Amino acid sequence: MSELFEKLQPYLDRSVALGSALTLFNWDGETLAPHGAFEKTSKLIGALSAEYYRAVINEEVRGLLAGLTEPQEQEGLTDLQRAIVKKLRKQYEELEKIPPEEYQAYQELLARSSQIWSEAKENNDFAAFAPTLKKIVSYQRRFAEYTKKPGMGLYDTMLDQNEEGILTAQLDKFFGKLRDAVVPLLKRVTAQNGRIDKSYNSRRYPTEKQREFCRFLAEYIGFDFEHGILAESAHPFTTNLHNADVRITNHFYENNLESAIFSVIHEGGHALYELGVDDELTLTPVGGGTSMGVHESQSRFYENVLGRSEAFWKPLFPKLKETWPEQLADVGLSDFILGINKAEPGPIRTEADELTYPLHIMIRYEIEKQLISGEIEIDELPGIWNEKYREYLGVTPKNDREGVLQDVHWSGGSFGYFPSYAIGNAVAAQIYSFMHREIKVGECLENSDLAPIREYLRKHIHRYGSTKNMNELLSEMTGEQLNVDYYIDYLTEKYTKLYLQQ
Amino acid sequence: MSELFEKLQPYLDRSVALGSALTLFNWDGETLAPHGAFEKTSKLIGALSAEYYRAVINEEVRGLLAGLTEPQEQEGLTDLQRAIVKKLRKQYEELEKIPPEEYQAYQELLARSSQIWSEAKENNDFAAFAPTLKKIVSYQRRFAEYTKKPGMGLYDTMLDQNEEGILTAQLDKFFGKLRDAVVPLLKRVTAQNGRIDKSYNSRRYPTEKQREFCRFLAEYIGFDFEHGILAESAHPFTTNLHNADVRITNHFYENNLESAIFSVIHEGGHALYELGVDDELTLTPVGGGTSMGVHESQSRFYENVLGRSEAFWKPLFPKLKETWPEQLADVGLSDFILGINKAEPGPIRTEADELTYPLHIMIRYEIEKQLISGEIEIDELPGIWNEKYREYLGVTPKNDREGVLQDVHWSGGSFGYFPSYAIGNAVAAQIYSFMHREIKVGECLENSDLAPIREYLRKHIHRYGSTKNMNELLSEMTGEQLNVDYYIDYLTEKYTKLYLQQ
Repeated sequence: MSELFEKLQPYLDRSVALGSALTLFNWDGETLAPHGAFEKTSKLIGALSAEYYRAVINEEVRGLLAGLTEPQEQEGLTDLQRAIVKKLRKQYEELEKIPPEEYQAYQELLARSSQIWSEAKENNDFAAFAPTLKKIVSYQRRFAEYTKKPGMGLYDTMLDQNEEGILTAQLDKFFGKLRDAVVPLLKRVTAQNGRIDKSYNSRRYPTEKQREFCRFLAEYIGFDFEHGILAESAHPFTTNLHNADVRITNHFYENNLESAIFSVIHEGGHALYELGVDDELTLTPVGGGTSMGVHESQSRFYENVLGRSEAFWKPLFPKLKETWPEQLADVGLSDFILGINKAEPGPIRTEADELTYPLHIMIRYEIEKQLISGEIEIDELPGIWNEKYREYLGVTPKNDREGVLQDVHWSGGSFGYFPSYAIGNAVAAQIYSFMHREIKVGECLENSDLAPIREYLRKHIHRYGSTKNMNELLSEMTGEQLNVDYYIDYLTEKYTKLYLQQ
Repeated sequence: MSELFEKLQPYLDRSVALGSALTLFNWDGETLAPHGAFEKTSKLIGALSAEYYRAVINEEVRGLLAGLTEPQEQEGLTDLQRAIVKKLRKQYEELEKIPPEEYQAYQELLARSSQIWSEAKENNDFAAFAPTLKKIVSYQRRFAEYTKKPGMGLYDTMLDQNEEGILTAQLDKFFGKLRDAVVPLLKRVTAQNGRIDKSYNSRRYPTEKQREFCRFLAEYIGFDFEHGILAESAHPFTTNLHNADVRITNHFYENNLESAIFSVIHEGGHALYELGVDDELTLTPVGGGTSMGVHESQSRFYENVLGRSEAFWKPLFPKLKETWPEQLADVGLSDFILGINKAEPGPIRTEADELTYPLHIMIRYEIEKQLISGEIEIDELPGIWNEKYREYLGVTPKNDREGVLQDVHWSGGSFGYFPSYAIGNAVAAQIYSFMHREIKVGECLENSDLAPIREYLRKHIHRYGSTKNMNELLSEMTGEQLNVDYYIDYLTEKYTKLYLQQ
């Protein structure tokens, strides 16, 4: 047992406990806290963030990390201890460059900003959100300036924090290839849209039954209610305290059948990741999913690759019709599969099909690049947003609510996050292609036996928490790093088969 | 502005923030957290408790408090600052005597024990709870040993922590007088019970309607849903993060109309106290209610003095009947008032009427005294419990579930708390007697205008948070300290009028 590591342990425990407290406050604020509490609660969150900062950034931890990084000391560590030291060191090096007062003030700002955004969105009032967004972007730029590595730009630094090593140079190529493949495919596909009738989706589906059905779906894909809960919030999300307390939320619209169904499968995919982390890792700094991209690969694998496939719905469709016999009276399984995969350019990212989805991401990626580089100003965002939607998707948002105000991310200080969704889709396709070699995925789905799929993901991804990064996981699993071709092949094959060969 | 106090401020902010995090974990554990989470979460709670300890107990705070207690330094402080220094100093002196490892281990134990108790109760298995209870009592005795003031016994020390200055000598007299008055009154009253038909109470009241009605009641008495929430838990309770986030829970039984109704009024009374604390005090160490006794005085004032009066139900009874027209078809207002006040010895404290209630408290008070002094052992508790119930109330609990396992308190380490309920009743009666001089309470109730009552309590009690203790509040309000005679007069008058003069 390394003596130095033993001395580090109390600091690890403190940082994990304080991190969990912040997680719980965040969960509570999104799901339950009374509306009028947030001003005062944000002060508590600011103070807790300062505590967190102090628990990680101090002379003792600095000294211990320096000692633990020495080669002869490294030899005496277990693999897990080495991973923890590496992760903590990275975090230390980033965090110590940010002055503690700025860190606390920023966390306080974030604790208030989500509500300010949410009200601005409700009132379709970008101007009400703009001053807060300006402050957030200014902090984000400043923090990236403090922490950026040599040769990296500000936006690269933000990307790197979301997905280690995946920077603009690579992403520009990634999105370039994707655009070249998706745009012509989308054109061919939408030309056929006339034969898909999706009117069933906007019939009336009372929320009580949706709630029941979604709970059933969560359990069906393997969400463990002994170690997790399902609640409601304005925007579905997943969070967790450790691998025995994983929480997902959902949101219901009476005139939209798909929304809640695919949200719960999506969040369920995130949840299975966190539930599958090894016991030995949970409650340590490497106890969570390794990156946003890998997290989104799990959620989007469940939501899209599995959840929008015919094999998935074959055993479930009778139950769906039983739940809403009148609303779905004239809908057959194949109509439903076409419906949930219908490719239709629209203004809202979260309602997008798999084919138009990456275009929504590209728009955000390009805007973020320009915003962080200073090429565009906050006040120009609504106009530029709408322009890009016309250019990429041929649609014009009716207002800022369904335009630039639609996503929560920026109000939470998440810049460089959006690409994770596209990376996640690509990783999901890459995994799927290799999973077939070991598992008969279609058969599992048709037999309502999702355990082998879950176990496969657990074995190759979940259990490692963040002891391996995305490219390490992919290399061990598939023999190569992130490769967008799998995603392009997946989309081409799926949409050709669905739309063009029937 | 005192320079020393300015230096103390960051420690205050830290202790308040960490205290709130622990409050939130506790709330979450009682209302929402998944069942399988508690082992791991209790470790987080242990680590946060240790952080809390460190934030309060350290050389800097010790030095600052010493400086701030100097007479010339005290002169430069505001009243609020003086109150904060006094409160923090008291807390410091108690906490510093407890070794930090023991404090953390105890907090971890408590985080697990409520679930262990709850399962033991469910399974009617005292033996499953006994080892945990032994550990809790042993910690409690040890901590009291560390912190006791000269001349105080162990149980006195626990009492003093719940209600400053109210020790066994005074409580023995308090309960003695109460017993001498209540026992004969109860005998006279129960002789008349034949004419009260309360069978309506156990008819079927579907919980969805109970939920709605109780939400209405909470709002009716002034609970502010902009700054509070109402949730559900196994045992109703109140907690808060600050005066803009106050949370109450309720619990529903399909075959018991009263239970949820009086629980929500009771918890609502606690909530109004915390909602009414001055803005300047909240988020400071003196921002919460001053003591358990004063807190219970507010909850029991609303529940009993107001909530079980005819004036309260006069405007509400038609709505109650409208909600359950069939179940209450044969019940008139006066039947209902007799029903909710029917004095009937039974085994369960929380279901007791106002007259038998203090007897339940006396039993616990006597048992705690003997348990803490070492006169009785944990394993003897079930037998002694049942014996005392036979002696005081003439009933024998059918099993430990409705006997010694009924209350949550001991599993939460609350010893010396139970007397607060009786003290609370006495304070409520004392306040009520003086409130009449300023407010026409009956008229307010009959007009559904509870604001003057709420404002009176806010003006004399709520707004002060814990800057004044119970006897200070009572003296300023009523010209005398705690006096059990008001309580005895209240019970005698109420039950004589209800039972014996009609």
